[in-house]
Amino acid sequence: MKPVDFLICGDVLITHLNNAPIPMGAVAVKGDTVVAAGPLPELAKSFTADRTINRPFGLILPGLINSHTHAAMTLFRGLADDLPLKTWLEGHIFPAEARLTPKLVALGTELACAEMIRCGTTSFVDMYLFEDTVASVVDRVGLRAWLGEGVFDFPSPSFSSGELAIKETERLMDKWKGHSRITITVDPHTPYTCRAELLRQSQRLAKARDALIIIHLAETEWENLEIRRLCGVSPVKHLDRLDLLGDRLIAIHCVSLSEDDISLLARRDVRVVHCPESNLKLASGVAPVPEFLEAGITVALGTDGAASNNDLDLMSEMDTAAKLHKGIKRNPTLISASDALSMATAWAAKALHREDLGCLREGSRADLAVVDMNQVHLRPCYNPVSHLVYVARSGDVQDVMVAGHMLMEDRVLTTIDEERLLKGLSGVVRELGLKA
Amino acid sequence: MKPVDFLICGDVLITHLNNAPIPMGAVAVKGDTVVAAGPLPELAKSFTADRTINRPFGLILPGLINSHTHAAMTLFRGLADDLPLKTWLEGHIFPAEARLTPKLVALGTELACAEMIRCGTTSFVDMYLFEDTVASVVDRVGLRAWLGEGVFDFPSPSFSSGELAIKETERLMDKWKGHSRITITVDPHTPYTCRAELLRQSQRLAKARDALIIIHLAETEWENLEIRRLCGVSPVKHLDRLDLLGDRLIAIHCVSLSEDDISLLARRDVRVVHCPESNLKLASGVAPVPEFLEAGITVALGTDGAASNNDLDLMSEMDTAAKLHKGIKRNPTLISASDALSMATAWAAKALHREDLGCLREGSRADLAVVDMNQVHLRPCYNPVSHLVYVARSGDVQDVMVAGHMLMEDRVLTTIDEERLLKGLSGVVRELGLKA
Repeated sequence: MKPVDFLICGDVLITHLNNAPIPMGAVAVKGDTVVAAGPLPELAKSFTADRTINRPFGLILPGLINSHTHAAMTLFRGLADDLPLKTWLEGHIFPAEARLTPKLVALGTELACAEMIRCGTTSFVDMYLFEDTVASVVDRVGLRAWLGEGVFDFPSPSFSSGELAIKETERLMDKWKGHSRITITVDPHTPYTCRAELLRQSQRLAKARDALIIIHLAETEWENLEIRRLCGVSPVKHLDRLDLLGDRLIAIHCVSLSEDDISLLARRDVRVVHCPESNLKLASGVAPVPEFLEAGITVALGTDGAASNNDLDLMSEMDTAAKLHKGIKRNPTLISASDALSMATAWAAKALHREDLGCLREGSRADLAVVDMNQVHLRPCYNPVSHLVYVARSGDVQDVMVAGHMLMEDRVLTTIDEERLLKGLSGVVRELGLKA
Repeated sequence: MKPVDFLICGDVLITHLNNAPIPMGAVAVKGDTVVAAGPLPELAKSFTADRTINRPFGLILPGLINSHTHAAMTLFRGLADDLPLKTWLEGHIFPAEARLTPKLVALGTELACAEMIRCGTTSFVDMYLFEDTVASVVDRVGLRAWLGEGVFDFPSPSFSSGELAIKETERLMDKWKGHSRITITVDPHTPYTCRAELLRQSQRLAKARDALIIIHLAETEWENLEIRRLCGVSPVKHLDRLDLLGDRLIAIHCVSLSEDDISLLARRDVRVVHCPESNLKLASGVAPVPEFLEAGITVALGTDGAASNNDLDLMSEMDTAAKLHKGIKRNPTLISASDALSMATAWAAKALHREDLGCLREGSRADLAVVDMNQVHLRPCYNPVSHLVYVARSGDVQDVMVAGHMLMEDRVLTTIDEERLLKGLSGVVRELGLKA
């Protein structure tokens, strides 16, 4: 009998890529690592655990990965809706963001972390401002994160130039180097807010540090037309000319693309993040995800920020991703429930070049969630993957573990004081010059 | 000081059609009726209550109306997904339905009622089988419902012919006449499963009894082509020739319509129920709801059955309804959060000719829900209607009242024993010849 730290026992276990459920599944965890995942009767013969967590109605699954968000924008959730993009951004979001401080970003990020833990998210990929502050919050609350300071041609609320934001990125890489849960990325904002030289600088830094480079790409038809007007080619082709396309590039949105763009993304092995709810809400359109999969592109899933979603609920996002393409293309076999779950687990891990995530098997990181299936809306259950995608919501998650630490146990957060956090918010809204 | 039965006090109150939030709102209830709804300081001067329910972080809203479902299909939730409609229906749903009994329908309906109460639903409109049994469950659990026995050309699991189903409808009308919460409707299934004579009989009964007539209409392009092939006109025009179109007709789905069909529905004042998630999941397409509203058609919202959604969460349905049309039409101003809420409240009440529902004002029925807004995903709050539609989910509902009776209080159901209900389900799945 080998000693382990945790034995987590459920009614059913979903381990990895093929998403086949294992009845009476359990996971043995030592340190930050999964030692074994499989049927409890087998594990019980091999391991003796310091702590056993029994969830007789629990569905154990790999922790979800939110591959695109702007965490601190929880502060602006529902601030302005149902408006044209330009009015929304320039009339509401930019003026509010101009008042951001590291303290406010810390609060917004903690709020986002609490919400994400509550929906079974164990990793997130963040592009925003004051990312050093974001990293400190992530370090403290225990989530896993990829963090990138937004790089723009114009001054941002945190830096007066894109060059300084790139310098900051380099500093963050040094500062957070070797942290087991925090990875710094290079985040040029978009092809239209970063001139060619800034994109080249971003790429040079990413290459030098073997870092991921993350960019919003082809989010709208306007962007597509604007880049064609300015550069004579599509946004995708523009990035290719600048040598940005490659398997270390994570392209967010990818809504307005030609067939040639899709082929090029596939040839260069660019990883794509699908944000269906934000794309719908901001009226950008629907990304051609079935075509991406057909072309062999790795597709991950993101909520985008709470200002354009308006939640960070990856379970609801899986639901939307699985339903939307069926309806639009009038083909019910597109994006199965298993595909949608993979976008939030194994495929996201592949996009991040971290195949020790998004799955539960010997050697993978101990990032997992347990969903309480003993609820009226989750019974009967013929297919747990179907229920996860089409029915389960954040309130159904009972436990969350990241790197072998319980961040939520029986619906109680262990690293975030929610009461204090919620009380802190009213003052913050005033500081932002807003009314709640 | 007038005595009332209940004073329900929240942080904010949404009363009716314009959905403007009232801070520190409260509702005074006597019997099954709202005596007053407005700011608490005003109400506190006029009323003394037997029971006061204080929800300092509560958002009080009119109870949601699920305008289309097949409640007992909760039994088949997730039984088969991501399949072509014909395979799904004929290979999975029909064979399972063939084994239905009144006992099984009672269980599935009770399960649906528990789920609907948990998401703030106070009224639902059901088209299914063994509706007398459904009515008994509704009578007992305390919801408000419009119930119709499905009428088909071929034998259903409950009746051997359409004529017998119509006879049963008449019997149900007599039996449940005068029930304060149960209304019987006439439910011919579709234009392609009911020959002209059956549709005419349905219409005659509806007219004679001043009842609503409810039909699935133009759900798919296949139906549109099939009716054109058989009758030479569109499904809408076909019903018009049979004199079915009118303000007592509730048409479900309405996805595949021509501009002429939309004009005709508007001219005849037909009420339409939008079921966006089911239409997406079954790959039927997207109903032209912005065009309906432009034409002045009353639009309500429904989840459809749990077999094609796969939940009965009207809050998630509002979210989808508000986002989907923006994205498809690339216009962020379409279907505002307030529109989506109205589809689930005031507009649904109008569709049902019951303007004492879907709102909270003097004289309306005391059907309401309270949402607990003191949660990380619902803070900060600049606009409660935005949060209700874009963020809140069933787990956020704290209290539900129907006709002056609390059906859920602080998240505990008062009329349904959930533990017993959940335990009862495993045997049922075996009885259906299925595996869970």
